Amino acid sequence: MLSQEPTPLYEGKAKQLYPGPDADTYLMRFKDSATAFNNKKKAEVAGKGSLNCRISTTIFDFLKAEGIATHHVKTLSDTEMLVKKVAIVPLEVVIRNIAAGSLTKRLGIPEKTEIQPPLVEFFYKMDALDDPLVTTDHIYLMKLATPEELSEIRSLALKINDLLRGYFRKLGIVLVDFKLEFGKDSKGRILLADEITPDGCRLWDAVTMEIMDKDRFRKDMGGFMEAYQVVWDRIQKGSR
Amino acid sequence: MLSQEPTPLYEGKAKQLYPGPDADTYLMRFKDSATAFNNKKKAEVAGKGSLNCRISTTIFDFLKAEGIATHHVKTLSDTEMLVKKVAIVPLEVVIRNIAAGSLTKRLGIPEKTEIQPPLVEFFYKMDALDDPLVTTDHIYLMKLATPEELSEIRSLALKINDLLRGYFRKLGIVLVDFKLEFGKDSKGRILLADEITPDGCRLWDAVTMEIMDKDRFRKDMGGFMEAYQVVWDRIQKGSR
Repeated sequence: MLSQEPTPLYEGKAKQLYPGPDADTYLMRFKDSATAFNNKKKAEVAGKGSLNCRISTTIFDFLKAEGIATHHVKTLSDTEMLVKKVAIVPLEVVIRNIAAGSLTKRLGIPEKTEIQPPLVEFFYKMDALDDPLVTTDHIYLMKLATPEELSEIRSLALKINDLLRGYFRKLGIVLVDFKLEFGKDSKGRILLADEITPDGCRLWDAVTMEIMDKDRFRKDMGGFMEAYQVVWDRIQKGSR
Repeated sequence: MLSQEPTPLYEGKAKQLYPGPDADTYLMRFKDSATAFNNKKKAEVAGKGSLNCRISTTIFDFLKAEGIATHHVKTLSDTEMLVKKVAIVPLEVVIRNIAAGSLTKRLGIPEKTEIQPPLVEFFYKMDALDDPLVTTDHIYLMKLATPEELSEIRSLALKINDLLRGYFRKLGIVLVDFKLEFGKDSKGRILLADEITPDGCRLWDAVTMEIMDKDRFRKDMGGFMEAYQVVWDRIQKGSR
């Protein structure tokens, strides 16, 4: 029985959450699973957990240095992070700089249209409902966040977008859009939570416009992990 | 050739729009067509156009007396209205007092949940996209309305909701939710446009909770036109 794996507190599509060494922390483990279309498409991809853990660590460190409060405490291994215990606000916060993906399908906006000012969208985190788009009024009606929390989340999301656009620009990468999640710590403070990886970002090479994110998996384009590796290589080099 | 019907300027699912007697007006004709699910289900129902024209006329007259600016000038026949020429704001404005229909499906809110304060939702009027839900940020991005216009539309919608809830309450009818459209006249003034009929309202009998609107058609419940007739009878009597 001693060798038995502990049961995760929470098992997501790409990560597991375990109790941390103290009451205020969780251990977050990045899995090698790739999923898309609300889990309708899935695969095991060796090395993905480790790449995403390293990418997310570096980006969290960058954001922390820029004054953004995140749940990341420290990275413990190639696939494991120690994070602050937060109550996740059940919203996927999507920030868009260029039209792609669901925005173009839902609203008929042509792919690659520049979006200025950047657009913030909120989706209700609920797999059973396929994470539906919600308006601020829906959010208040369902008590998913208070107006004050939502206003803070929105400004944090836009600030993070500004920082990350600049960060990726230096790496020769266009940040097309990305998804964030936020949580509340025991004092009610809003912290950036979850992860920031090519699973939840659209990243295009600034010169070739080549896709460097999970769309390669969604669209069966091949070169999926190779693209994540290039992102990680550029992050390490700090330039294109 | 003299007996040929003039070509409508616009042919909708339930109405046709013809040039009016002068440059500032249209003639709006209510058709006998019933449609649901973005035209996937349709039927011809004798007498529907006439019932809807009469119901809409009476409701527009009530709203005008309460100070709401509408496109309705006068009703010319059993199925024809003279209306002011407006440029339709391409938004379906839905106001909800009780959870029903798409809201319950999209967000998992239980049917019949009271919604307080009333919820205003905006849908982009675009059949090819199945009239998608839009947030205020989508509306500004796509320039469907300015912030000032949207703010005026929202307060008009809530005021009309207050007035109509009271109006239907006296008739023993619960106004569950309804759809409005607005237009801009040549001076840029926002006017209530389109129609207000059981096609675009959910109306339940206050005592029996029986459905008295287009849901009878959507759900194949039978007694579709009979229900519209009861609504009209109560409107004429001015009470239950």
